[in-house]
Amino acid sequence: MEISLADIARTIGGKLIGNGNKIIRGASCFENADKDHIILAGSAKYLNRLDETKAGAVIVPSNFDTSSISRDMVAVENPMADFSKLLEIFYPGPKVEQYISPNAVIGDNFISGNNISISHFVSIGSNVSMGDRVRIHSGVVIEDNVTIGSDVEIHSNVSIYARSQIGSRVIIHSGTVIGSDGFGFAPDKEKYQKIPHTGIVCIEDDVEIGALNAIDRATFGETRIKRGVKTDNFVHIAHNVVVGEDTLLVAQVGISGSTTLGNHVIVAGQAGISGHLNIGSNAIVGPRAGIAKDVPDNEIVSGAPEMPHKLWLRVQNIIPKLPELKKKISELEKRLKKVEEK
Amino acid sequence: MEISLADIARTIGGKLIGNGNKIIRGASCFENADKDHIILAGSAKYLNRLDETKAGAVIVPSNFDTSSISRDMVAVENPMADFSKLLEIFYPGPKVEQYISPNAVIGDNFISGNNISISHFVSIGSNVSMGDRVRIHSGVVIEDNVTIGSDVEIHSNVSIYARSQIGSRVIIHSGTVIGSDGFGFAPDKEKYQKIPHTGIVCIEDDVEIGALNAIDRATFGETRIKRGVKTDNFVHIAHNVVVGEDTLLVAQVGISGSTTLGNHVIVAGQAGISGHLNIGSNAIVGPRAGIAKDVPDNEIVSGAPEMPHKLWLRVQNIIPKLPELKKKISELEKRLKKVEEK
Amino acid sequence: MEISLADIARTIGGKLIGNGNKIIRGASCFENADKDHIILAGSAKYLNRLDETKAGAVIVPSNFDTSSISRDMVAVENPMADFSKLLEIFYPGPKVEQYISPNAVIGDNFISGNNISISHFVSIGSNVSMGDRVRIHSGVVIEDNVTIGSDVEIHSNVSIYARSQIGSRVIIHSGTVIGSDGFGFAPDKEKYQKIPHTGIVCIEDDVEIGALNAIDRATFGETRIKRGVKTDNFVHIAHNVVVGEDTLLVAQVGISGSTTLGNHVIVAGQAGISGHLNIGSNAIVGPRAGIAKDVPDNEIVSGAPEMPHKLWLRVQNIIPKLPELKKKISELEKRLKKVEEK
Repeated sequence: MEISLADIARTIGGKLIGNGNKIIRGASCFENADKDHIILAGSAKYLNRLDETKAGAVIVPSNFDTSSISRDMVAVENPMADFSKLLEIFYPGPKVEQYISPNAVIGDNFISGNNISISHFVSIGSNVSMGDRVRIHSGVVIEDNVTIGSDVEIHSNVSIYARSQIGSRVIIHSGTVIGSDGFGFAPDKEKYQKIPHTGIVCIEDDVEIGALNAIDRATFGETRIKRGVKTDNFVHIAHNVVVGEDTLLVAQVGISGSTTLGNHVIVAGQAGISGHLNIGSNAIVGPRAGIAKDVPDNEIVSGAPEMPHKLWLRVQNIIPKLPELKKKISELEKRLKKVEEK
Repeated sequence: MEISLADIARTIGGKLIGNGNKIIRGASCFENADKDHIILAGSAKYLNRLDETKAGAVIVPSNFDTSSISRDMVAVENPMADFSKLLEIFYPGPKVEQYISPNAVIGDNFISGNNISISHFVSIGSNVSMGDRVRIHSGVVIEDNVTIGSDVEIHSNVSIYARSQIGSRVIIHSGTVIGSDGFGFAPDKEKYQKIPHTGIVCIEDDVEIGALNAIDRATFGETRIKRGVKTDNFVHIAHNVVVGEDTLLVAQVGISGSTTLGNHVIVAGQAGISGHLNIGSNAIVGPRAGIAKDVPDNEIVSGAPEMPHKLWLRVQNIIPKLPELKKKISELEKRLKKVEEK
Repeated sequence: MEISLADIARTIGGKLIGNGNKIIRGASCFENADKDHIILAGSAKYLNRLDETKAGAVIVPSNFDTSSISRDMVAVENPMADFSKLLEIFYPGPKVEQYISPNAVIGDNFISGNNISISHFVSIGSNVSMGDRVRIHSGVVIEDNVTIGSDVEIHSNVSIYARSQIGSRVIIHSGTVIGSDGFGFAPDKEKYQKIPHTGIVCIEDDVEIGALNAIDRATFGETRIKRGVKTDNFVHIAHNVVVGEDTLLVAQVGISGSTTLGNHVIVAGQAGISGHLNIGSNAIVGPRAGIAKDVPDNEIVSGAPEMPHKLWLRVQNIIPKLPELKKKISELEKRLKKVEEK
């Protein structure tokens, strides 16, 4: 792949600074770039030492003062996102060509679009449909009545239970389980009676699910992951949860049953959210937070129990000083006693 | 499926109120019920607005005053459990019919009961036995010398290591791993020497294991999951753990090696329990608790470090007020100084 | 397998005490040993009641006073590690013999050593190489351009993405995912642009990875798990993380992107480490700790926020006493007011 720097600037809508005829053959990182590579210098950490990289060209923020820099550059509004687009151009995923492994098993009434790729030991149930350019890696199990959109990639050893619905441009990483029964049992004297789960899981368009996620089907109705959601590894999403658009769920997050997250929420790593709560749009939940109450729109909460993030920062500072505070209280008591006895 | 309301009342042992001849054709939820559906109204949330559902019949608690309600109802002692039984009647799992995929591989000395179903790309080792009506989904791996009871369902891509023992009426959800080596290494100068794990995992009758659980085999002897235990997703059970009967382990719980849980324990989500502990019967461990000491029978503990739940509730209230308390202490110091200097 | 006690002493470099001609036929545990078994009594718990075991011989620490004990024993420097070596002798893993299942699929340009075993429904991509005595269990997926050393065991249903590198004497337990894309998305107005991950995962020699781990590939460059690392179940290792030699990661630990761990670190269960941090060599991170700052070499830290372990022990003691402290402060206020009003 060879692209001139001028073409790169045009493609990502940036401002060319320097030699537009320079040919770029790859995108890489600051430390390891070759002379025909383009790199990202999105923050001061890299911008302050641009002379240290061998890269042939640099993506810089449009508000960066380039007047004293003698390098070939492209200035953009949104360096990380624009550089990511370049990465996709230089390192495109494999083109999906029509291929169905003779070692795959496909059930009755299979409906599929064009250029689908189904690898070895994939098991597809009855009445499954999928769109164009769907790529199913080895060892994936898709049970009956599942629907899948177009331009979907499902990595190896994913398990998708019956009747799950998956949109277009969805990526699901290896080992993930979609549509398992929610954790619902009714006490029946000393034992527990299983509550059958007749609902489904819906995953909308443009969602990326990390490795080894578990997304449970609803008791009734649906568990819904809305457009643009991205999840890291080991995310647990219980029955009847709704995750709003463009929400990020970081690794090892757990969301209990029937909780609803708004749009553009961020839940940081290892946080847990109780059931039947509403987490407002644009809310941010701090790492390892334990959320037991509703969170309003636009709030940043941290801690367990959760509290406003700014308060939590102050609390965090005090906790290691508790032994000191305890000592102060004892001293105050002694001194006060003395004064009282006067 | 069509059942008269009188038959429903008889089947679940409830009291019929209203038209016993009404034909019911499904069970669903309050909001989406059709006229020939029966629903559950187990709590005030629904009982207070029974006029809002279209459902043809309602399961209500036997202590609910139905005198002023003009609806067809069945009053029962245990609404959730009894409604769950109805769900199983209206939406039974697929009947397990004898089917062994030509794409499964089964080792020597396979012993099996009647009406077993083994789906595609299932790998079964040597000397494996299973009872009647066992259903193995695609991609499951069962290694040598595993025994499985009757009426068991093992979902797709489950991995069961050699010599594991699984009882009857067990459900195991996708991606779960049973019988992997425990995390045991002996320091040997700077390096670690692996401690071989010669033990096994035993799962007793009526257990349901969620998706993506990991249950390690014992160093010697066995890791044992007793009758009626139910686990949510992502539960980690280390080597030589014993989980007592009818115990619930909620999502992302971790139990360290050689710990014993009594009967009818509940461990809430994301809690962690250290090794070599005893958690008493009927104990409840709060969400995200970190348990480092034994818990007596019938105790409710929360927090990390764990403490009685009622104490923890008070502690939880104070933590966000720590900045305030710190300020108060400073003020007290200043005021006391003034008094002292008088 | 029959070995004389004298040979056992010689093999593990211990001091024979008692009858060297005694024939030992197995190794087991204190409670269940037979007369021809050897057991480990590494701590006072067992050493104080050696008369209670039926075992024929006992491994004891070399500093244990055996003068009054009339038992056949072998005294060693490092009882657990030496006993583990005996376990490996008495219960060796199956000898790996050349076997490639007719139900496996292997891509072009496969290069392999001698005596490899590839079980059923294993999918191996193109340009994969592996050394001698590699054992791949059923349902494993290995994508293109993966390299694997010698004496490696990969358990069932593991997923290994393209270009991953795996050393020699590595064990990977079931369900683990190696090489999935890191969680990297660049905000692009309201949506997120995926950051392509062109890097790889390198796992060095003598590493053991537990069940259901997720180790993400680097954005650029590599995520590296160095020689001798051992991980428990459910460990999350994000993109560009480096884990130093002989480091232990206990169950449900999460390590965020670009963090580096030194050699011989221990991270206890359910702990989380933020991104872009340095955890020094020989550091110990306590269970459930939340690490947000660098940890120097040799430090022991606990808590969230992390603090020196000894401080944390004192803080842990005070937290349940917060209601008491709060009450004391109120009382002090009242008493001080009285004094002030005098």
